[in-house]
Amino acid sequence: MTLVGKRYHPPGTPPGTLTSAAEEPAFMRYLHYHPGSVHTTDEPEVDAISHPPVEGAVGWLEITGTPSAQQLQQILDRFDVHALALEDVLNQGQRPKLDREDGYLFCILNWPSVAIDAQELTLQFHQVSLFLLDNLVISCAPRGTDCFSAVRNRIERTQGKLRSHSGSYLLYALIDTVVDQAFPVLEALGTQIETLEEAVLEGRNGVVLGSIHRTRRELIVLRHRLWPQREVMRALLHDSDDWFQPTERIYLSDCQDHCIQLMDLLETYHEMTRGLLEIYLSEQNNRMGEVMRVLTVIATLFIPLTFLVGVYGMNFNIGDSPWAMPELRWKYAYPALWVLMASVAAGMLIGFKKRGWL
Amino acid sequence: MTLVGKRYHPPGTPPGTLTSAAEEPAFMRYLHYHPGSVHTTDEPEVDAISHPPVEGAVGWLEITGTPSAQQLQQILDRFDVHALALEDVLNQGQRPKLDREDGYLFCILNWPSVAIDAQELTLQFHQVSLFLLDNLVISCAPRGTDCFSAVRNRIERTQGKLRSHSGSYLLYALIDTVVDQAFPVLEALGTQIETLEEAVLEGRNGVVLGSIHRTRRELIVLRHRLWPQREVMRALLHDSDDWFQPTERIYLSDCQDHCIQLMDLLETYHEMTRGLLEIYLSEQNNRMGEVMRVLTVIATLFIPLTFLVGVYGMNFNIGDSPWAMPELRWKYAYPALWVLMASVAAGMLIGFKKRGWL
Amino acid sequence: MTLVGKRYHPPGTPPGTLTSAAEEPAFMRYLHYHPGSVHTTDEPEVDAISHPPVEGAVGWLEITGTPSAQQLQQILDRFDVHALALEDVLNQGQRPKLDREDGYLFCILNWPSVAIDAQELTLQFHQVSLFLLDNLVISCAPRGTDCFSAVRNRIERTQGKLRSHSGSYLLYALIDTVVDQAFPVLEALGTQIETLEEAVLEGRNGVVLGSIHRTRRELIVLRHRLWPQREVMRALLHDSDDWFQPTERIYLSDCQDHCIQLMDLLETYHEMTRGLLEIYLSEQNNRMGEVMRVLTVIATLFIPLTFLVGVYGMNFNIGDSPWAMPELRWKYAYPALWVLMASVAAGMLIGFKKRGWL
Amino acid sequence: MTLVGKRYHPPGTPPGTLTSAAEEPAFMRYLHYHPGSVHTTDEPEVDAISHPPVEGAVGWLEITGTPSAQQLQQILDRFDVHALALEDVLNQGQRPKLDREDGYLFCILNWPSVAIDAQELTLQFHQVSLFLLDNLVISCAPRGTDCFSAVRNRIERTQGKLRSHSGSYLLYALIDTVVDQAFPVLEALGTQIETLEEAVLEGRNGVVLGSIHRTRRELIVLRHRLWPQREVMRALLHDSDDWFQPTERIYLSDCQDHCIQLMDLLETYHEMTRGLLEIYLSEQNNRMGEVMRVLTVIATLFIPLTFLVGVYGMNFNIGDSPWAMPELRWKYAYPALWVLMASVAAGMLIGFKKRGWL
Amino acid sequence: MTLVGKRYHPPGTPPGTLTSAAEEPAFMRYLHYHPGSVHTTDEPEVDAISHPPVEGAVGWLEITGTPSAQQLQQILDRFDVHALALEDVLNQGQRPKLDREDGYLFCILNWPSVAIDAQELTLQFHQVSLFLLDNLVISCAPRGTDCFSAVRNRIERTQGKLRSHSGSYLLYALIDTVVDQAFPVLEALGTQIETLEEAVLEGRNGVVLGSIHRTRRELIVLRHRLWPQREVMRALLHDSDDWFQPTERIYLSDCQDHCIQLMDLLETYHEMTRGLLEIYLSEQNNRMGEVMRVLTVIATLFIPLTFLVGVYGMNFNIGDSPWAMPELRWKYAYPALWVLMASVAAGMLIGFKKRGWL
Repeated sequence: MTLVGKRYHPPGTPPGTLTSAAEEPAFMRYLHYHPGSVHTTDEPEVDAISHPPVEGAVGWLEITGTPSAQQLQQILDRFDVHALALEDVLNQGQRPKLDREDGYLFCILNWPSVAIDAQELTLQFHQVSLFLLDNLVISCAPRGTDCFSAVRNRIERTQGKLRSHSGSYLLYALIDTVVDQAFPVLEALGTQIETLEEAVLEGRNGVVLGSIHRTRRELIVLRHRLWPQREVMRALLHDSDDWFQPTERIYLSDCQDHCIQLMDLLETYHEMTRGLLEIYLSEQNNRMGEVMRVLTVIATLFIPLTFLVGVYGMNFNIGDSPWAMPELRWKYAYPALWVLMASVAAGMLIGFKKRGWL
Repeated sequence: MTLVGKRYHPPGTPPGTLTSAAEEPAFMRYLHYHPGSVHTTDEPEVDAISHPPVEGAVGWLEITGTPSAQQLQQILDRFDVHALALEDVLNQGQRPKLDREDGYLFCILNWPSVAIDAQELTLQFHQVSLFLLDNLVISCAPRGTDCFSAVRNRIERTQGKLRSHSGSYLLYALIDTVVDQAFPVLEALGTQIETLEEAVLEGRNGVVLGSIHRTRRELIVLRHRLWPQREVMRALLHDSDDWFQPTERIYLSDCQDHCIQLMDLLETYHEMTRGLLEIYLSEQNNRMGEVMRVLTVIATLFIPLTFLVGVYGMNFNIGDSPWAMPELRWKYAYPALWVLMASVAAGMLIGFKKRGWL
Repeated sequence: MTLVGKRYHPPGTPPGTLTSAAEEPAFMRYLHYHPGSVHTTDEPEVDAISHPPVEGAVGWLEITGTPSAQQLQQILDRFDVHALALEDVLNQGQRPKLDREDGYLFCILNWPSVAIDAQELTLQFHQVSLFLLDNLVISCAPRGTDCFSAVRNRIERTQGKLRSHSGSYLLYALIDTVVDQAFPVLEALGTQIETLEEAVLEGRNGVVLGSIHRTRRELIVLRHRLWPQREVMRALLHDSDDWFQPTERIYLSDCQDHCIQLMDLLETYHEMTRGLLEIYLSEQNNRMGEVMRVLTVIATLFIPLTFLVGVYGMNFNIGDSPWAMPELRWKYAYPALWVLMASVAAGMLIGFKKRGWL
Repeated sequence: MTLVGKRYHPPGTPPGTLTSAAEEPAFMRYLHYHPGSVHTTDEPEVDAISHPPVEGAVGWLEITGTPSAQQLQQILDRFDVHALALEDVLNQGQRPKLDREDGYLFCILNWPSVAIDAQELTLQFHQVSLFLLDNLVISCAPRGTDCFSAVRNRIERTQGKLRSHSGSYLLYALIDTVVDQAFPVLEALGTQIETLEEAVLEGRNGVVLGSIHRTRRELIVLRHRLWPQREVMRALLHDSDDWFQPTERIYLSDCQDHCIQLMDLLETYHEMTRGLLEIYLSEQNNRMGEVMRVLTVIATLFIPLTFLVGVYGMNFNIGDSPWAMPELRWKYAYPALWVLMASVAAGMLIGFKKRGWL
Repeated sequence: MTLVGKRYHPPGTPPGTLTSAAEEPAFMRYLHYHPGSVHTTDEPEVDAISHPPVEGAVGWLEITGTPSAQQLQQILDRFDVHALALEDVLNQGQRPKLDREDGYLFCILNWPSVAIDAQELTLQFHQVSLFLLDNLVISCAPRGTDCFSAVRNRIERTQGKLRSHSGSYLLYALIDTVVDQAFPVLEALGTQIETLEEAVLEGRNGVVLGSIHRTRRELIVLRHRLWPQREVMRALLHDSDDWFQPTERIYLSDCQDHCIQLMDLLETYHEMTRGLLEIYLSEQNNRMGEVMRVLTVIATLFIPLTFLVGVYGMNFNIGDSPWAMPELRWKYAYPALWVLMASVAAGMLIGFKKRGWL
């Protein structure tokens, strides 16, 4: 997947063109449940699905994987969904959004997941598409991540709440699962940031710079993927009164809270990683400065001394002139020179110390 | 085209002054279609175009290239368009906008295109002007980029949707084509950013800095060119109820989604390139620091040793004084000096190692 | 507590699932007061608490520590609070918020506290949850920080205002206490920033960088924790007319002023620490530049001199050729060389001086 | 003019105090025109100006230069303008604004101009004040820049549009002239930025830094001067229905478009110059890094060699001990040493090459 | 005063607690004026002040310094002001705000002043509190800065406007004085910034960095102090219709313009100082780079030459082997060596020149 992250048709293609990239047809499962019973049909005949479901029952058509154009056409015919919505289901990588159409509600979300490889985090995003038609929910989730198994289990095993609610509550349960999926992802990112922070403050080198960059990049992408979900929740809560019952609003509101908390956390992480890079640079600067200081001190200590010993290595011949290096023949010249050199070195050391360079 | 990017008259010129920079008159083509038939006229007589088109038919006057003042005057006279709008058509480089006037809708968009030369991206922008008068669409697009060939083909070849819709749907189809044109441009930019990212993290040098700068500059310009199109779409969707039929709103909404996705992507790219420069600088800093470290180590190793050998190159004459470098005559002095120098070097290496400079 | 800072259930868990992390049940205390009397019951029977309290009286159920699931269930049964609210009480680390439900008001706030260890500040945040049901207030505060002792004292000791007000005034008093708690925290942070500022401008090193980073990090976290409280206050003041009496609005407004002042201060601190890092880096740069300058001057002074003395240390033998270093035998060659070297050194010093490098 | 850029009275001065800084009275000209005729009066008697002008005519009192307090007093008396407005006319350097008072419209704009001196741009701003009373326009523009000559010519020479419109259209024409004046200024700035960009990418030095700073400063000032004009246009277009006729709104709207385009351009320039400085710094860094690299290579090549030749310059006397530098008497010692030194140098060069430092 | 800048009670203190930090009671003065007369009473009996003042008269109770709790209690009793407002008067350092209560208007502003010491600016802020009860104004200003002497003079001396207006106009006059006080402060800051700018572009060192930091810090504080005053003015102008007469709105509007101009200026200054630091850093970088360049050139010139003279300082004895440094005995060896060294030096100089390092 490129950075654009979204499949798109060439400009000028008619809207609602359905061309599937699927290599194998998507797997379909149909759950039909009352408070008292659950019926599961694998690979159901789409045309045979009763729409709306019988009074008091809820239907859930769960599609896993990218549906083929043919499967979509069946859904299009059976449930009267607009071709533009189905195009969005096929062209993966859409921005999360909520469309309130006549007869159905269409919602796109992002299912984030995190892969850790050699201490490097890689985020992946899969598009989840959800339709709500009276008491019938159609979900379209990526193959591989069994996103909705928890919800399916809650329907199948327990006599709990889920079976006794309407289709809109099922929609909420699915959305809630997708939204909450970002918490473990953020937790992994948080751990990564803390690891990097330690590495930076301890002055570790090399890998860190690339890791900080990659973490920031993942945060940028994550923010742009999750940010619109907040808007989706707001629209569900405030502009979709006809689709949700008043008692369900408190659940949507709880789910919106989670969205807001996620964005808050992301913001915090973002500011932290920005700070991290600055600290890393300062740390590197300091380190280089220290190396420089040592060079300065050692070099400036020995450069004058080397000059001095060079002086007395000259070959001026006292035999030719009494002015030619008479020092060479003085009795204590050699020890005196050592004393001189020691004084010069000591003087410089004291000078450096006073300027705070040692 | 200068950075201002917009042709303008000297301050104080009367509004609606039409002076064309066109060297040759623009090419005009008139399409007139019913669900069942299409008539195409090249270089039509403007005065002969029926306005509004006959009942149930749609007319499309496609102008390619910059129209001459005379051509504009004909349009002005025939269709009662305000001179200010025509001035905007001539003075290329306008900001995208939507004007809702009495009797027509006037819309300016930007058609971006990308040229890749020696791995450098250059973006170009051409102004596309669109008018909608009852079931008559006038489009004015730049010569060279056959922007609307896809739409023309859809009208001419197929018995598809386009022919059976009204003029406002044609307007939507043209707008949609212009908006979607930004996706391949962004894809090229995304590839460029990823290439730069790799180059930076691998520490490649030289060309990269200029490329990062140019990419950022292109992103800045692109953002300022595309941003207002979002507003245009919003205005089309929400304030133009009288021009569009309810069933067409879902198409406009889909097109607005594309605009939003484009801005989202641009934002993401912008943040990424900003990060890229910071990483590049850090990388350079690190590299320079490493070079410094090697210099430090080699120089500080040899500077004291050079001093030592300098000492025994002095010409103090033991014949003149027993204090003058008696070491020179000690039996094992020379090998001992080598041992001393080796110890000094080893001591320093150990010291550097301990401080983590090796 | 990880960076996520919030306890959460695995995605897909049914909403309102109450699993407590409490190791020991929370301590409960029930205050029941009229203007004339106060009754305090430790560990009251929850089922026995009269709800609503008798006419003219106010009840305050103060829970200290994390309640066990069983305690929460009692509260759920007795006061008809929604399970989602109780889940938020248990899953500590929630974002401050205000929920206006039928029959009660539910408010989450953050109680910040500061620990100073070896001149390093560490902020901690504890979630405070507050419920208001007609004249009955339920507070849930962390064990250890006796948050509400001041309010309890005001009820118990004085004949003051508090006893003569309704339950909503008690709620205000508790909120006010939590909000004002940020002032001493900010004061500690302000002192820390001023200390760092002095250290930076005096050019102190080492610890400072880590401290600046940690202070910035604490400010980021603090801002994200306190910011939503402003929104809570706004909602209390403007959207909760049914819960507060007109005369109490001036108190809420005063409390909101405090929130705004806190955010203002935080913003100021944030900008200051950002400036601090920049100044620190400049300071370091300057310092390194000065060290470099001294190296330059000393090295460039002695390098040419060392070359000169090297010249006259060569062994060209005048005996072999009259062209071989005749200078060695000139009478004043040696002193002349010193004069030459002194002139070279002086010339360079003057040159450096003129360029402003000394 | 200081950075404050605005003339102000000491705090506590009564509002509406008129003290003029004018050294000579302003020049006044009165134009009075019908569609069919124009009358121009230089230095008219203010009291004799008919207000409102005769039916169907428009009056324009054009004041050039800073009016004296006496002139203002005449205007105050004749046209019933508020003293606060006249104070704003005198205290040059006001922020652009629109005041809608009873009986007149008062508008302040900024007339930017650019002076290029030795490749340095300097922007200047002059305040233009405009009043509209029924069909009478009073303009107050700075001496020296004959701002409104283009408009005056359009009135005097042509039989064009201007004469056949009302006073509000004249106001629009004047405002349009002032707003459009920013285009040539921005074009000059754009050229300057492109010149700097080239200079930076070619690595030119010295003057560039100061120029970037000055350009940024001019952009900051320009933005703060022009930004409010956008708001002025918005207010003219949306809140001044009583002053403009419906057919004039399209002209105001066109002028507002220009304002928006100007701000867009300014924003783009601002981001570009910010990027420019970063690139400049990186470029400098690179350059310094390259110099460092060469130093490293040359120094580290010769430092070990200098040590080696130092070794054989020592005066250990083989006559005293067989251990004292026996190498000196080996037959091939000298050429062998050259071979050794060449190998050392070659080894280091290969090492540097492999590390990519050459 | 700490960075918090605000006096506050410990969390949990009852709202409206009045504890004064005043060491001596504040000075009070009461002005009571008609259009025709003014009566001034120093230290008036608070209880004797007629409230409201007699028909057509205006009263002004001017309090200078921090009032004692007792003085406040008198005011509380006499004028029925809420204890929370009086608490805000005592707890200096409040954020500017406007409270519209039943029976009075309460307004807090900041009086900035600037002290220049050894070319360093220090800003100080004093809280000014203003009450408006029907035609009675109570002002509470800091001791030392005789804030309102200009207004008092206008009342006492002139027969001017002020005496003929109502209490709300007096309130406006006081607010206007406080707001305008920021102009001289900003002018001083502007001068400071221009001085720093010159110092930076001339490359002056040392003190500048600290000064830039301090100026930025002052700007940050000033912005946070003045920003809310804009909101106060907006609220006065738009939400306080019942307190101001229609003819007074133009004065408030003028005052709001001043607020907006101040914020504009502050924003400009802020951006300029930010640019200043960046330029300073670049300047320093350049300077250090130049020093480095000179070091490189001198060192790399002499290091190879020193090696060469070292070679011919070696003691290989030609007596022992014909291979041992035969050059030493060649006739023109010495001058040839000089020629060689001169060529090496010249070659390097040319190389450096070509690379642009000289």
